[in-house]
Amino acid sequence: MKAERILMAHGSGGLMSQQLIDEIFKAAWSNEYLESMLDGALLDLPAGRIAMSTDSFVITPIFFPGGDIGKLSICGTINDLVACGARPLYLSVAMIIEEGLPLADLRRIAASMAQTAALAGVKLVTGDTKVVEKGSADGIFINTTGIGLIPAGIDYRPQQIREGDHIIVTGTMGDHGLSILAQREGLRFSTPVSSDCAPLYAIGRKLAPYKADIRCMRDPTRGGLATVLNEIAVQSNLGIIVRDKDIPVSPVVRGACDMLGMDPLYMANEGKMVIFTAPEKSAAVLETLHSIAECQAAAIIGELRAQPAGLVLITTELGAERILATLEGEHVPRIC
Amino acid sequence: MKAERILMAHGSGGLMSQQLIDEIFKAAWSNEYLESMLDGALLDLPAGRIAMSTDSFVITPIFFPGGDIGKLSICGTINDLVACGARPLYLSVAMIIEEGLPLADLRRIAASMAQTAALAGVKLVTGDTKVVEKGSADGIFINTTGIGLIPAGIDYRPQQIREGDHIIVTGTMGDHGLSILAQREGLRFSTPVSSDCAPLYAIGRKLAPYKADIRCMRDPTRGGLATVLNEIAVQSNLGIIVRDKDIPVSPVVRGACDMLGMDPLYMANEGKMVIFTAPEKSAAVLETLHSIAECQAAAIIGELRAQPAGLVLITTELGAERILATLEGEHVPRIC
Repeated sequence: MKAERILMAHGSGGLMSQQLIDEIFKAAWSNEYLESMLDGALLDLPAGRIAMSTDSFVITPIFFPGGDIGKLSICGTINDLVACGARPLYLSVAMIIEEGLPLADLRRIAASMAQTAALAGVKLVTGDTKVVEKGSADGIFINTTGIGLIPAGIDYRPQQIREGDHIIVTGTMGDHGLSILAQREGLRFSTPVSSDCAPLYAIGRKLAPYKADIRCMRDPTRGGLATVLNEIAVQSNLGIIVRDKDIPVSPVVRGACDMLGMDPLYMANEGKMVIFTAPEKSAAVLETLHSIAECQAAAIIGELRAQPAGLVLITTELGAERILATLEGEHVPRIC
Repeated sequence: MKAERILMAHGSGGLMSQQLIDEIFKAAWSNEYLESMLDGALLDLPAGRIAMSTDSFVITPIFFPGGDIGKLSICGTINDLVACGARPLYLSVAMIIEEGLPLADLRRIAASMAQTAALAGVKLVTGDTKVVEKGSADGIFINTTGIGLIPAGIDYRPQQIREGDHIIVTGTMGDHGLSILAQREGLRFSTPVSSDCAPLYAIGRKLAPYKADIRCMRDPTRGGLATVLNEIAVQSNLGIIVRDKDIPVSPVVRGACDMLGMDPLYMANEGKMVIFTAPEKSAAVLETLHSIAECQAAAIIGELRAQPAGLVLITTELGAERILATLEGEHVPRIC
């Protein structure tokens, strides 16, 4: 391609749009669906229940330690499908690109998307590209929408959660949020911090034997663990108690958050899941999670109680209880 | 809601995000899927073939004669699904909103989306909202991704097109493109121009009896009719001949295009379809189209030939033939 940067003509729908699609997207994502040359993808599905989930990604900066907006856009939608109990199968990709974006950046993003999708066994089956004038967007925004099959017997919903259920997090909290914040602000730590951005397809596969014991899953992205727990407390109409000392947070994230006056429980994660399970199976679920690379630090952090309905309590190391409130106002903007 | 404009906190994932969803989106689109409180929608589908299509909408201005970005975002994806031969069923909606957008605009857009979806019998089942700082986007960008069921026996693909097939357009060309251009440039005409933006679900339903006779459909959006014809000529490896006098163009669009030095065959349409049919059934298909409100001006405009393979020819009123080239460079930017 002659131009080294995105031009308005790349969004015209004409010759240059076609070249962009052929030389960057089809080259990176090649599969039989993309080759169909239709306005959409034709997919053969067995009868049953599917999950459909959508997310747009506006993160800044678009390249960060541990990932980039492309990898993130694949992980985000895969993880939402896994949270619904689905096996992720197909993703659509729609990009809004600012005039002037270097084509090298776009190639790098497309390659990262291909690699992450391949790892998770999902196919990028249909797409769309729009270009807006310089100053009308910020680099690149990516939407992915995914569909996945829900195996028989899986019904993960907050309404399934009961008094006494246990709460598991699959790893350390706050890594993504802190690493983005540190990069934006030019902060350096003795131990480098990196986003936890990862596609959690293995959680869905390995926990299949426990499908009757798992009540609900959520991935704690924007708003972090505190926001997920508050949503679930309201939606289940139960009380939640978590133990601060049991919530995994890496030393560097804890130290940096202390320094910045931030709470890692409100920081975004992009490779973690919160799992609500029957209490008698939580130890077995935890053991299974420990066999997954991304879930080495998984821990049981608390449980459901009848009271105080709709609220989240956290017990501190000193034994005091306080309310872990839902996020008010803004936290770290454009984190995903 | 206290704020009269979108704030960064509306994109935090916390309390204000939830209020925005509840008070604007759920209020407008209420259905059982949105109420599920999951990270995605759970949908029960029969076994078979589905189509999945995605489009982001970055049109400016966001309100225009004949529609708005909300209506357009529903029509665009519905029409892509219809072009694939699918009955549109479910749409996801993902919005990227610039800080400062008046909430009244967002309410108006949400209501317009609800109305268009209801008309077409599709449900808005899952969504996502991101907010970016003032100056990092231009008002609002909307992605819709849709899935639809393809009835047995339908296989619309450019590879199905054969020599001798007829080409039908379902109405006048260029209305959407010209109306957006006129509004942007402050042009006024003696007859007002209006976008043709419409959801073409009726075309899918009413043409069902002709499914074995229809080879392929395309909606001529960005790049217009000329771009669709060129794509099909290449993909079918056949030649296309169209007759200028048979292509419906309204007098005001023709007059305005002449004045502006633009060609209506390259102007975007948002409520039209190009249909390739077996020649022996084209008259019956045309008669059926004339029974649909949006297709009163439908016409047979040309046919497929063996030669010149991959090219589109147009015969002028004077009988001359010239090549109707594919769109090079940019045309009218941000038309959809």
